[in-house]
Amino acid sequence: MSSEAKILLPESELPRAWFNIIPRLPNPPAPPLDPKTGRPLDPEALRAIFPRSLIEQEMSPEPWIEIPEEIREVYRLWRPTPLRRAWRLEQALKTPARIYYKDESVSPPGSHKPNTAVAQAYYNKKEGIRRLATETGAGQWGSALSFACKLFGLDCTVYMVKVSFYQKPFRKSLMHIWGAEVFPSPTERTESGRRILAQNPESRGSLGIAISEAVEDAATHEDTNYALGSVLNHVLLHQTVIGLETKKQLELVDERPDVLIGCVGGGSNFGGFVFPFVGDILAGDLEAEVIAVEPTSCPTLTKGLYRYDYGDTAGLTPLLLMHTLGHTFEPPGIHAGGLRYHGDAPLVCQLVADGLVKARAYPQNPCFEAAVLFAQTEGIIPAPETSHAVRAAIDEALKCRETGEEKVIVFNFSGHGHFDLAAYDDFLEGKLEDYEYPEEKILEALEQLPRISAPKDDD
Amino acid sequence: MSSEAKILLPESELPRAWFNIIPRLPNPPAPPLDPKTGRPLDPEALRAIFPRSLIEQEMSPEPWIEIPEEIREVYRLWRPTPLRRAWRLEQALKTPARIYYKDESVSPPGSHKPNTAVAQAYYNKKEGIRRLATETGAGQWGSALSFACKLFGLDCTVYMVKVSFYQKPFRKSLMHIWGAEVFPSPTERTESGRRILAQNPESRGSLGIAISEAVEDAATHEDTNYALGSVLNHVLLHQTVIGLETKKQLELVDERPDVLIGCVGGGSNFGGFVFPFVGDILAGDLEAEVIAVEPTSCPTLTKGLYRYDYGDTAGLTPLLLMHTLGHTFEPPGIHAGGLRYHGDAPLVCQLVADGLVKARAYPQNPCFEAAVLFAQTEGIIPAPETSHAVRAAIDEALKCRETGEEKVIVFNFSGHGHFDLAAYDDFLEGKLEDYEYPEEKILEALEQLPRISAPKDDD
Repeated sequence: MSSEAKILLPESELPRAWFNIIPRLPNPPAPPLDPKTGRPLDPEALRAIFPRSLIEQEMSPEPWIEIPEEIREVYRLWRPTPLRRAWRLEQALKTPARIYYKDESVSPPGSHKPNTAVAQAYYNKKEGIRRLATETGAGQWGSALSFACKLFGLDCTVYMVKVSFYQKPFRKSLMHIWGAEVFPSPTERTESGRRILAQNPESRGSLGIAISEAVEDAATHEDTNYALGSVLNHVLLHQTVIGLETKKQLELVDERPDVLIGCVGGGSNFGGFVFPFVGDILAGDLEAEVIAVEPTSCPTLTKGLYRYDYGDTAGLTPLLLMHTLGHTFEPPGIHAGGLRYHGDAPLVCQLVADGLVKARAYPQNPCFEAAVLFAQTEGIIPAPETSHAVRAAIDEALKCRETGEEKVIVFNFSGHGHFDLAAYDDFLEGKLEDYEYPEEKILEALEQLPRISAPKDDD
Repeated sequence: MSSEAKILLPESELPRAWFNIIPRLPNPPAPPLDPKTGRPLDPEALRAIFPRSLIEQEMSPEPWIEIPEEIREVYRLWRPTPLRRAWRLEQALKTPARIYYKDESVSPPGSHKPNTAVAQAYYNKKEGIRRLATETGAGQWGSALSFACKLFGLDCTVYMVKVSFYQKPFRKSLMHIWGAEVFPSPTERTESGRRILAQNPESRGSLGIAISEAVEDAATHEDTNYALGSVLNHVLLHQTVIGLETKKQLELVDERPDVLIGCVGGGSNFGGFVFPFVGDILAGDLEAEVIAVEPTSCPTLTKGLYRYDYGDTAGLTPLLLMHTLGHTFEPPGIHAGGLRYHGDAPLVCQLVADGLVKARAYPQNPCFEAAVLFAQTEGIIPAPETSHAVRAAIDEALKCRETGEEKVIVFNFSGHGHFDLAAYDDFLEGKLEDYEYPEEKILEALEQLPRISAPKDDD
């Protein structure tokens, strides 16, 4: 075991291929369905908004997919990222556990998001696309895609959830610095936006609405494609650089993880971090507990229904089999952080449904409490999303204090909170409310789900 | 020459001693003077506000000063910091120059400031002090000292320049997260503050006023000391870890610097970065141009008078021989960034006076323009202070494009701009004005300088 605070990999150890979990799964993933026919989607239908190479990756049976050198060159601006040993946090907790965190906050936009943004910008550029359209909530994804588009010479249009556009102006500033155009969604620029505004001119927006707008923008412009920051298989694939590096780093210090933890919004930082380890678990080479953490105000994995649902509010996207709170979900305004998406990545949901991943939900106050302890010991200030993983890691370490177990706890530090300090102010002033998403709302949402049974239910 | 984007040092290469430039200088530095007598200061007079070990470092003739292991352990949270090769910036500039930057933005508070904050907190704790008082402008120093105090279990009181307290709330949030108490200065808590408020209840504050308040707080409380974030010899000493690491990193890729660049506010990031190289220049082992960059709105080195002046507004501090705009200087409100101190570190001023360092001033718009190009190529967003160094590095690289010279340009990237995005918004919207500090104001300031000649003038 090393006594160092940072376990670093040289740039020569940057992964050369992404890890595809699909061919390793015990059961093949349920196919996305065409929203018009309810039949498995013809991949050609996605050509209006995605480049061919990403559609191929979405369905690929290959266990490894090579990372083009142009992408690795950009990754080298901040990758490999450090794996850090949380010595001071361990001391503060008086735990015999050893806590490590993979620090994805060191990228220019401050989170794991550019791992896929850079890949998506590259493939779109290569296939002759001139502009990418996307949605963003708090702005993590929008800023990452703006950054990536600038590096590859693409234009970038971001539909930013209106309430965040006005309340969280700083990731919008990042997007402007990196040359993107940013609109508060719902906008008058799209049919989907105009429909929402006609119903409710005061709409604060939601991720689902912003996705509808960005997809429509891409589908109606020949030179424009759409880019999604989470949920889809190819997005999680690109994020596996996180877990692949972490595995090498743990080997360097001769450690094997007992507990692996990540926060889940759409599931991409979680999937990217744990999939390479889940591959080992499935192969019988590793025994570890894998924990997905989400907020009680958006409890998709812990309380949602495992059903086919749309990815967006307007029902433009294919149907995906996932844990969902219903595509009309609007997150409660009292919730400070991200992790507000109504569904989750189908690959993550399948692992939860199969019992390979355990899901856990926390209210926001205990998460901020954990984040402040983390900042006061390790220095770095977690994003509110990341604070959910920090909370779970601390709870696991406290369990070890009770049992005396010297477990190796590894979590993904998905991003820093430099642009979320107003939420910390609210927490420190006691202004944050906890919120449990009510059961009756989930039953209501059931009524709004499309009338399509999961293929699993048919079998 | 390496083709890597980051030149990393292992933690084992973290410097074990700080580099003291004093014994290497051709002339001994002019002594600080007692403000009451005008005679060289008795070091014992500083015991009311500084611990003995730091006073010794302030005057030390030792060429190397060992870094205690407890400090190195904290440094390891983020040090050694990367030296980065700005490949993409070079390509954008079409320059034959090779541009490297030492990335001090990776510390938890986001700048070089904790290099000395951690050291100062450590020595004060060791000598039985319970609380540190300090001042801060935009908050870089206040947040760094809060962070350091929390790690060593000290209380921390920060007097924050009032206009920044209200206009730049986010570094205040950082200080709160790290457990400090923060007051908008001038306050009613000190005699100095009350005097200013009596004269002008609407005072927006200044660094000089906030220093007066913090010094008074420390001098009037037995268990409390004062900590300064720049200017003094021991502060610059602690910052030499920057230059020492940079030297090792350049050796790793077999490069010798032709041009060394840093921005100057009080001079600590600049001094810490260049002193180890200046030592080589003085020893005849290196030929390089050393450039200090400051704003035209606070042009201490380029237009200030090289005279003895107070470090603060109220005249509580010892007199220092430095380039000064007068201790009553109030920076123009239109200036977006930091670098607003009326004086400069005496050690840096001496190098400028001796012609070993060249000083250069830029208006803010060309600096932000350079910072945006940097962000669009290298990803990282510079602090407004740092943007002055970026501008100078780009100008040097553009000169090489004209001459065809393949110079090695190395600059210190002192901090990121995550908490200064409102200034970027203003720049992108064309709202920033450039400002030349007028000559007549400097002549006015001359009238207010204490009537003490520099010992040099006496000789």
